[in-house]
Parts: sequence; structure tokens; C-alpha cells
Amino acid sequence: MQLGMIGLGRMGANIVRRLMRDGHDCVVYDVSADAVSALAAEGATGASDLADFAAKLQTPRVVWLMVPASLTGKVVDDVAAVLEPGDIIIDGGNSNYRDDVRRAKALRERGIEYVDAGTSGGVFGLERGYCLMVGGSEAAVNHIEPLLKTIAPGAGDIERTPGRTGELAPEEQGYLHCGPSGAGHFVKMVHNGIEYGIMAALAEGLNLLENADAGVREAEHSAEVAPLEEPEFYQFPIDTAKVTELWRRGSVVSSWLLDLTAAALNENPTLTGLAGRVSDSGEGRWTVKAAVDVGVPVPVLAASLFERFASRDEDHFANQVLSAMRLQFGGHKELPAGDVLEAGGRKSDSPPAR
Amino acid sequence: MQLGMIGLGRMGANIVRRLMRDGHDCVVYDVSADAVSALAAEGATGASDLADFAAKLQTPRVVWLMVPASLTGKVVDDVAAVLEPGDIIIDGGNSNYRDDVRRAKALRERGIEYVDAGTSGGVFGLERGYCLMVGGSEAAVNHIEPLLKTIAPGAGDIERTPGRTGELAPEEQGYLHCGPSGAGHFVKMVHNGIEYGIMAALAEGLNLLENADAGVREAEHSAEVAPLEEPEFYQFPIDTAKVTELWRRGSVVSSWLLDLTAAALNENPTLTGLAGRVSDSGEGRWTVKAAVDVGVPVPVLAASLFERFASRDEDHFANQVLSAMRLQFGGHKELPAGDVLEAGGRKSDSPPAR
Amino acid sequence: MQLGMIGLGRMGANIVRRLMRDGHDCVVYDVSADAVSALAAEGATGASDLADFAAKLQTPRVVWLMVPASLTGKVVDDVAAVLEPGDIIIDGGNSNYRDDVRRAKALRERGIEYVDAGTSGGVFGLERGYCLMVGGSEAAVNHIEPLLKTIAPGAGDIERTPGRTGELAPEEQGYLHCGPSGAGHFVKMVHNGIEYGIMAALAEGLNLLENADAGVREAEHSAEVAPLEEPEFYQFPIDTAKVTELWRRGSVVSSWLLDLTAAALNENPTLTGLAGRVSDSGEGRWTVKAAVDVGVPVPVLAASLFERFASRDEDHFANQVLSAMRLQFGGHKELPAGDVLEAGGRKSDSPPAR
Amino acid sequence: MQLGMIGLGRMGANIVRRLMRDGHDCVVYDVSADAVSALAAEGATGASDLADFAAKLQTPRVVWLMVPASLTGKVVDDVAAVLEPGDIIIDGGNSNYRDDVRRAKALRERGIEYVDAGTSGGVFGLERGYCLMVGGSEAAVNHIEPLLKTIAPGAGDIERTPGRTGELAPEEQGYLHCGPSGAGHFVKMVHNGIEYGIMAALAEGLNLLENADAGVREAEHSAEVAPLEEPEFYQFPIDTAKVTELWRRGSVVSSWLLDLTAAALNENPTLTGLAGRVSDSGEGRWTVKAAVDVGVPVPVLAASLFERFASRDEDHFANQVLSAMRLQFGGHKELPAGDVLEAGGRKSDSPPAR
Repeated sequence: MQLGMIGLGRMGANIVRRLMRDGHDCVVYDVSADAVSALAAEGATGASDLADFAAKLQTPRVVWLMVPASLTGKVVDDVAAVLEPGDIIIDGGNSNYRDDVRRAKALRERGIEYVDAGTSGGVFGLERGYCLMVGGSEAAVNHIEPLLKTIAPGAGDIERTPGRTGELAPEEQGYLHCGPSGAGHFVKMVHNGIEYGIMAALAEGLNLLENADAGVREAEHSAEVAPLEEPEFYQFPIDTAKVTELWRRGSVVSSWLLDLTAAALNENPTLTGLAGRVSDSGEGRWTVKAAVDVGVPVPVLAASLFERFASRDEDHFANQVLSAMRLQFGGHKELPAGDVLEAGGRKSDSPPAR
Repeated sequence: MQLGMIGLGRMGANIVRRLMRDGHDCVVYDVSADAVSALAAEGATGASDLADFAAKLQTPRVVWLMVPASLTGKVVDDVAAVLEPGDIIIDGGNSNYRDDVRRAKALRERGIEYVDAGTSGGVFGLERGYCLMVGGSEAAVNHIEPLLKTIAPGAGDIERTPGRTGELAPEEQGYLHCGPSGAGHFVKMVHNGIEYGIMAALAEGLNLLENADAGVREAEHSAEVAPLEEPEFYQFPIDTAKVTELWRRGSVVSSWLLDLTAAALNENPTLTGLAGRVSDSGEGRWTVKAAVDVGVPVPVLAASLFERFASRDEDHFANQVLSAMRLQFGGHKELPAGDVLEAGGRKSDSPPAR
Repeated sequence: MQLGMIGLGRMGANIVRRLMRDGHDCVVYDVSADAVSALAAEGATGASDLADFAAKLQTPRVVWLMVPASLTGKVVDDVAAVLEPGDIIIDGGNSNYRDDVRRAKALRERGIEYVDAGTSGGVFGLERGYCLMVGGSEAAVNHIEPLLKTIAPGAGDIERTPGRTGELAPEEQGYLHCGPSGAGHFVKMVHNGIEYGIMAALAEGLNLLENADAGVREAEHSAEVAPLEEPEFYQFPIDTAKVTELWRRGSVVSSWLLDLTAAALNENPTLTGLAGRVSDSGEGRWTVKAAVDVGVPVPVLAASLFERFASRDEDHFANQVLSAMRLQFGGHKELPAGDVLEAGGRKSDSPPAR
Repeated sequence: MQLGMIGLGRMGANIVRRLMRDGHDCVVYDVSADAVSALAAEGATGASDLADFAAKLQTPRVVWLMVPASLTGKVVDDVAAVLEPGDIIIDGGNSNYRDDVRRAKALRERGIEYVDAGTSGGVFGLERGYCLMVGGSEAAVNHIEPLLKTIAPGAGDIERTPGRTGELAPEEQGYLHCGPSGAGHFVKMVHNGIEYGIMAALAEGLNLLENADAGVREAEHSAEVAPLEEPEFYQFPIDTAKVTELWRRGSVVSSWLLDLTAAALNENPTLTGLAGRVSDSGEGRWTVKAAVDVGVPVPVLAASLFERFASRDEDHFANQVLSAMRLQFGGHKELPAGDVLEAGGRKSDSPPAR
């Protein structure tokens, strides 16, 4: 089957490669002519501009966009301008599902089908395949199914879920028609929201392990915070690289994210060089907003998002406000925030005024 | 090598079976004579009481306890009474690591070694092996290493972590000496704390997917809560059984807990019959308390614990207090809580007094 | 000065009364003719329809809308149709600040000023006055200042903030021009978001006090959850009605919401009759979404919102998923969720398989 | 009535002053002879050592300890050594209620009464009085009631709670016998736990207000985080000093902590000089641990505690772990964490590999 790919970054190029390996025919375009020639050298049909791209595709054309989310709107418009009724646009990027709903509606009026394909797989996708969460009309998704089947990981050597028998369902092969336009990116959004939560659960637990020796370390900020009450219970110098490696085998928390964590800690046990200012892309935010919209409580997913904000010091003013209140009611206006708890110079002084 | 096992419930019995399969020699004891005979029939040496048990073991004796956490203290005392200096007690149950610290100290004075072995694996352990997190003295843990190696899952077919080369480290075989007495159960405790967080992340995300069709369902409680503002964006009837199956392949959230969730939803897509009153064992609680002790923020782990409390209505009085406050400042004393937001009978009435 | 009021529910009518008491002249309209006559009998000028309403107001007309948020859009349109350039519409309801931004822009093109006035005060406003958070152009807000001054509480007998001297600033009199259109409702939104957080802090703390006697109560769910480890520390039968009354005097948590809580608990110490299904209006949700938009961590405000969702069982499917997972890995498929932790019938059985 | 005070820091000295003003007779002791002489000059009877202190008190002696929590245990022992059966020790400091339970039990065996008095009031206590939460036997608390009545704020000019009539109850005068030994500090502990929650609610809300102009500020970290999607809705330059002043009048969030916040922001609107590293004393931690013990969900109180931990960078290793995972699955090993989201150099590059 034939696919036109627009956007030849790592993921776009690798999807093309995966398709060509499986015998599909690809027409490719990118604003970078070099990127186009590179893939042409591997067997794809290069296009010099969008008109050329459209001309080289058989109708109904199937066009996959793999461009940054911020550009998707413009590229959809540009591509739609060279397409005809019956053609199909697939957005494989990280779009907000709300944009899909809007775009699908607008394109439908012009007879063009719009399919959103949430795509997970990262740098390992070329070999492992990409997990595909797809939204769109029944007809359009059925039409592109041969492509989805190739891009997806397939059943692989993953043990079959008990109770599933017979022919492999699409979801067992790594792709799923989740619902109407937007459903694919909605499911991908929630996927990433869950990802934030799992990452945070692992990170918090490892932080606790890393501090399991708090009782042996010198209490460097004893004046500032409540002292450790029972240091005899925090005498464990835990090796988090070894523990994460261990948990990969037979434990309840075994997961791909744990595999990555074990690899990271094995490579750099102290995580030297990482500032711990954690980025977030849009999906974690959209997940929380969607949950708020429909009234679903997501305390864990939200907490994991807010931890990332705080890691970038977005909590700074709030913390200053807290220190300011404590200075007010503690009566220690002249002292730096860090010393607030030192109630005075004498041993028998009163506790900090609260 | 020889091991004495006390407590022949599912896990105790299966560990014995796994050891015997690998050529180890097991002496077994349980308050249930039937349980003893059952394993004796499979090749173990049965003991009729603790004295008999001790007599049948070669010194230095190695005794593994697999009894409910609430009984461990008593059983340790009873067993210690029949042991001699140089013998080793291993607690494989779900003890609080603080009890390990205390018990190890008390037994050390009598020359008995105490090893805590956090054990994960559940009903799948007989085949998959048990992930072992071990605390104790260097000497004691070295002595029992052949047993640990057998009980643990081994390297299996899990891909080796990049950067690891040469002979397999213990953690790559599924067991790890984590530190002094208590360290094993400490690591197991944190493991379970993380487990709670991962489970909650998955559950919250799936709850959001389950409600992705909020815009098409009749807004049955429109008077009670803020109405859905943009129903057009919540029109997705998502099949969570299919989505969890899908994510098992190539997605970032792939994990053993996801495998189980996919299995559960495949078996019972609506989860009919489950009341959703979620139990919690001690480890999640101990994790949060340990984190509070050492000053490590664990918002996700704590939130996942509190969700379980709330699932059992432990938030009831708090919610009543909230409703009571709203009745006070809203001035709607006579109405049931659910109707508070109805500001009055007329269309042009004021918004609820806030 | 003259004001036209549309919407004569409790808040609208009371604002009119407060204005008239202070010598202002009010023209009033409501879809309920009875509501109009009632206020006319108290001295207001009644209007029979919007045209009549507009005719009875001097230019530049000042029109205050006090209608449910869901109707505000339509009423703004209807009113704007009878107004002229230079007139001013004030929305005193609980609108989303985003609607203000849009409406102000649309009306500006027709020469009509739009002012949003977040209004807090509830059923006590007639006597205490209403706290006013105002957004709009400098000119419009200056023009209506005499009205704001009357509606607001004034300085009252509240102690002046240390460091403030000279003439009373507007904020010391209970009204504030917060910024351009939308700023008033934005500040009101955050006010309500904070309100949710304070309410939750009080409710959670009181729930803990209510359960401070957990050690003396029969552990009715001992099979289901981790048993209380140190019952000797939870032997306190606390009277929450008395404690909240106490805290009103000299404590750090003294607040108006505490006053209300003390009143509610004094009236109904067991809160009998309250189901604890806690409603939420839009502001708490908008606050969390705005915080997510700008990347500000609000774990407390979000948690307080999610607790309300959970109080209405919006966490149900998530909890079922958790139970389902536990059934899977615990191997207790046949048992109801509540009994999962019972590992078996025998005393020496293994701990629940984890 | 007579009271002996040990510990003449600010709170101890001010309680003595408040008692003397009301005609009570005070014997005072402190390790600082200067502190003793200073109060002796104001009319108290100074003691040179504990024996002298005990000799100057009539039996049954009533001794109030106002010493740092870390010293209380030792001072209780030292004082008990010079007391006799029937005497009463009152601990007015910030002790853990668990210590009260233990100490009361030990002293009871020697016939000495132990009363714990959680004391709130801070630097304003001399004039306003101290809110007293008291635990102990009926007999002991009744005996010291005249002292409690003087130290407490009294009814003051606080409006009486609706429904309360007749003589003022103790709680209306600012002191309350909460239950047996430990109950006083338990209630004080929860009070402080709530205090953390209220403080956090205010701080988070103000942080959001402070960032309500995110749309006009240069997006300095656009490469690092998700860009602001609708900058037109975040154009509000809010003056938080004015807003907090405003809310003191007629708003739902009016509270003493708001008064302090308004004062702090009026004095220092940008909070310059505050690092925002927020200390925590023990009570917030004990509150969360007690809630975990009895199974009461406290997501808001816990989140407010964890925010303080994070403000002191106790989340650092967790954040590094998150960055490390992102580097692993994003494949951007060579880049600093902050640039992870930059998917590549070309416009048409793929989205970050997820």
C-alpha cells in the first residue's frame, strides 16, 4: 500500500523505514531537502513540494503528518489545499485531541477524512514498532489498516492475556481504533498522564530509598527542620541502581519505565549532571484539565504534574508566602527564613511561638 | 543445602517446592499437621513440633518463617527458644522493617542471626520465582546465598540492562543483599509503596477513559454539580479492556500491573461485582510514615494511599463537614446537601450565595 | 447615584436594598413581576421590560446583572440591545473570567463598557456588605466607584493592617479594581479555589479528631484493612463542636469558615442528615485549570477539588480497577473485594501473596 | 492562685505576666539567672534552683513547663524528682502527644498528675491570651481551671456562635479540657496540621494570582516546557498585597492567617529577601502519621507538608530520576535536562519521541 509522509524527523523517517521494510511504498516530503534525499536514497519517492507530493500519490491519497504539534494546524491547512475529496490525512504527532475534533469537522465539510493516530514508541520504535491509538471514521481507519498493522509492534513475544483466544485482535497487534476523531489522541493523552504518575511513583520511592540512611548522615539542617526522631530506623545505605535492577525480576513494579530507570542508574548511579528540572509536554496538563472537566478525581496524576512544576521552581512565590506568614506569626522578622525555628539563644527558651 | 520452613501456606509451601525441585533438602513445620503431611508427601521432611523441627536440622540451622506478620513476633520467640548460637532465622513475611531492627538486635545478643527477606511474587512465584530483598549481616546472607539463588527468578529471558557485562550480579538473578537487618523489608516496603502509586496512576487514567463519553451521557446530576462546559469534547466511548491490551505493546506504560489490568478487564469489562472498597496492607502506610520521618516528599504515594482510605468511606465525616459549611454560608439549611446549588425557583434568581 | 439592577434573587435584591439605604436610586427588573413589585414597594423604580428599564435609566446607564452564570451570556446580549455607547454593564454573578474577556471585547466594539464584579458575601451580605473584586477599564470603574463603596463592607471594625496609614484605600473598604476586564472574576475564582482548600484543611483535620478514638472502637473491619498498630495512642473521644468553638479564640486557624463550622457542629454535633456528597461550583475547577495553564503547582487546591469529586463517588471505576488488580495478583478471584486480605483459613497461612 | 513556671522564654515569661496581671502568684525558674531576675523585678518570686523552686510552692504544687520540646523529657524527670504525690505538672510546650501518654503513665505511678496544654497564641499572646487545648484527669484540670481561665483569651468581642446561650462554656473562653492525657497536644497537633493546609491554600492561590500575567511576560523557558496555550487569558497584573487586604473584608476566606499575609505583603510586596525554604516543626508530620495510623485520608494536609519538604529541595533526587528517565526514553542523552523537549534543529522534525 502507499503512504505519503510529511515530516522526516526521527519518528517520521523511522515509520517510513518500517513501512518500506514491509513492502509498502512511500512518498516523502520535508522542508529540509536533505532529509528528503536521505530517505530517497533508502528507497522512498522524494517530493520537492506539496504539489509534487500530491501528484505522486494515488487517490485516495493517504498522508501521514509527523510534525511538531505547534505546526500541525498550519501543515494540515497547506496539505488539505492540495488534496481532494476522499483523501485521508493522518496526524501522528502529539496534538491536543480538541484540535482533532475541530480539524476533523472542518475537513469533513470538504470531503477529506481526518484520522488522529497517537503514537508511542520513542527511539526504540524502528525495531519495536509503534503503539498506535487511532481516532476517525470507520471507513478511513479500515482503509489504512494495512499501514497501521505494519507500523505497530505486532504480537511479538508478549504472553497472551488469559482468556483471549482465536485470531489476534488489532489491540493485540499494537494498534486500536479507539473511536471517532480525537479519540486516538485522547487515549494517547491519558496514556501520557498515566506515564507521569508511574514515573513519579518510581521517583518518589527511589528518593525515599536514597534517604534511608538519613540517620547516619549529619543532620546538617537541624536548626531549620524537625530533627529525625528515631535515627536508629534510618541506617540503610541503599544502592538504588541495584534495587531497580532487582525489581526487574519477579516484582510487582516491573515495567518498561523501571527498565529505563535501572539503565539510567547503572550508567550514572548518582545521577551526576542532572539538574532535576523536569520538563513537561502538553499531555499531562491536558489530562488533568480533561479530568477536571468531567469531574473525575485524579489526585495522583495531578500530583505528578505539580511535582514537575515545582522541580522548575514554579512554587517559588508560594513558598515565599509561607515563609512570610511564618515570620509574621513567629515574630522573627529579622532572621533569614532558614533560621525561623531557632526560638532564641538560651537553652530554656520557649518553643517557637505558634 | 538444607532449609527449615515454618508456615506452609501458599507462599511457604511453594518456596519449599521450588527449593526441592532444585535439589535442596527441606524440613517443614506448620500448626496444621495436614499441611505438613502434604509437603512430606512431596519429599520434604515433616516435623511434629518445634523441638522435632530443630532436631532434624543440621547446625548452623537455617530457618525460614513464612507466617502472617501479626504472628511473626511470637513465632520468632518460639523458634529462637529451640535454636543455638550460630543458627539463622529468616523472616520472609511482610514484617515492618522496624520490627526487624528490634528483633535482630535482641537475637544478636543470643548469638542468633536474623535475616529479613522481603519477598515478592504472589501466586505466580512457584513458576516465576520470588524477587528477594534481603537484610542482615554479610556472613549470614552469604551463608544462605545458595537458597536465595534458587528461590529467586534468575536472569530469565529479561533483556540485560545496557552497560552491564560479565558475570550476572545477584540483583540480575532476582535477589539482593540490601543492607543490615531491616534493609530487606525496608526495600520491600518502598516497593509496595511504589506499587500503590503505579496502581493508582493506571486506575485514575482508566477512570478518565471510562468517562470520556461524559458529553453523551445524560447529565443526571446537573443540579448538583457544575455542568459539563464543552460536551462536544467528551463524546468518546472508550473500551478500556482493548486500550489496556493495546498498551501492553510498545507503549511507555507497559508493565506487569498493566498486564494484570488487561486480564481483569478482558475477563470482566465492566468490573461487575467489585464494590471498589480497596484494602491496604501495612506497607503503603509505613512508606508514607517513613517518608514523613526523613522529610522526603511523596505526594503521589500518599495520594494513592488516601484514595484507598476514601474508597472505604473513611472520608465520610470530612465530607459531612464540607456539606455542613456549605449549608451555613449558602443559607440553604433546609435543603438536602445534593441540592445546594439550586439557588431558588426562579430563572432570574441570583447565583448561589458565596 | 443611579443603578439599574437585573435579577432580583436574594443577592440582587439585597444589593438594591443596601444601595437604597445609602441614598442611591435603583431601577429594577426581573422576569418575575412579583419580585419587581416587592422591591418597588421598598422604594425602587420597577421596570416592566428591558425597554422600559432602559428608558428609566439616565445616561450613561449603569446596569448591574445578578443572574445565574448560565444565563449571563443571553442576558448581556438582550441588555446590550437596549443600551447605547457609553453605557456600562456590570456582571456581578459567578461568570468564568474567560467569558468576561470575550464579552468585554465584543461590547467594546459597540462602545459599551463591561465591568466584571466578583461578589462575595452570601446571605450575610445585606448587613456585612459584599466583598467586590472588580475588572474593567479605569474610566468605567472610576465612574461606578460610589456604588461599589456602598455595596462593599467598608472598613468596619477590622483592625487596620500594620504599616497602613492615612486615608483608607479602596481595598480597605472592601472593593478593589483588580485589572482589566476579567481580572475581577479571576480574583474571585482564585478566592473560591482557596476557599475549597481551607474548607478541606478544616474538614480533614476534624475527621482526624473524630477518629482519635479509633483505638477504643471495635475494629469492625479488621479483616479488610491493616489493623491499628498502636491502639493505646488513639483513645481520645474528642468533641469537635467544642474544639472548633475553642479555636475561634486566639488560635492560628481562626477564620470565618471556622466560625461557620463551629456553628454547624453546635447545631448538629453528629452532622446527622448530611450525606456528605459535596457539590462544587465552577470556580474550583477553573482555578485548577488556570494553574495548569500557567504551570503553577496547586496540589492542595487540586486535592480539595478531587476530594469533592470522590465524595460523590466519581472515583468508583478507579476503585474497581484497583480491586480488580488486587484480585489478579492476590489470586483471590472468588472472594468479594472486602475480604482480599484474608489469606486463608489457617493461622499459619502465608501472608497475602504480593 | 499560685503557679510555678519553668522556662522563661518569650511564651513562659508572657504567661507569667498575664497571670500576675490577673492577681495570680508566680514562682519562676530558668537556667538563666538573668531571666529569673527580670521577672522577679516585675513581681514574681524567683527561684535559684529546682529545690528552691519546689520549696517556694504550696502543695499541691502546680508547675508549668514552657521549654523546648527536645528538653521536655529531661525537665519533667528533674522536676518530678523534687515533687510529691498530689502535685501537678503541666507541659505547655509543643510535645508529641505520644510522649504525654507515656509520661502521664509513668508519673501516675508516683502519684503525680500530668496535664498537657497545647498552647497557641504566639507573639500576640500576652495581649490576646493563649488558646489552650488541655489533656489530663478531670481532677487535675478542674484544679488548675482558674489559671487556664486567666491565660486564655476569654470571650473577647468575638460574636457568639448562633444557638449558644446562657453562661459561657470554657471553650467560649478559650480553654478546653479535651480528654485524657495527650488529648490536649493531640488537638494542638491537628490544629497545626490544619494550619499547614490553610497556609498552603492561601500560598498556592496567591502564587496563581502572581502568575496571572503569564501571557504578557516573555516566555523565558519556552524550549523547556509546554508553551502557554491561550496567552490572551493571562494578562492580569494582580497586586497580591491589595487583594489580600481586600479579602479581609466580607470574603469567605477571611482569617487570621490572611490578616498576617496582608501585613507581610503590605510590608514587602515582592517578598524580597525570602528564600522560600519553608521550615516545618513536628506537628504537621505527626498529624499525617496519625491520620495514616487510623486510616483517615488527609490529602490536603499531607500535600501541604510535602510542599514544605520540596521547598527545601528534598525532592531533588526524585526530580533527577525523572530527568534520567526522560533522557532514556527521549534518546537525548547528551543534552542538559532543560533542553530535552527540543526535538531537533529542523522545523519539520518529529515531536519529542515519546
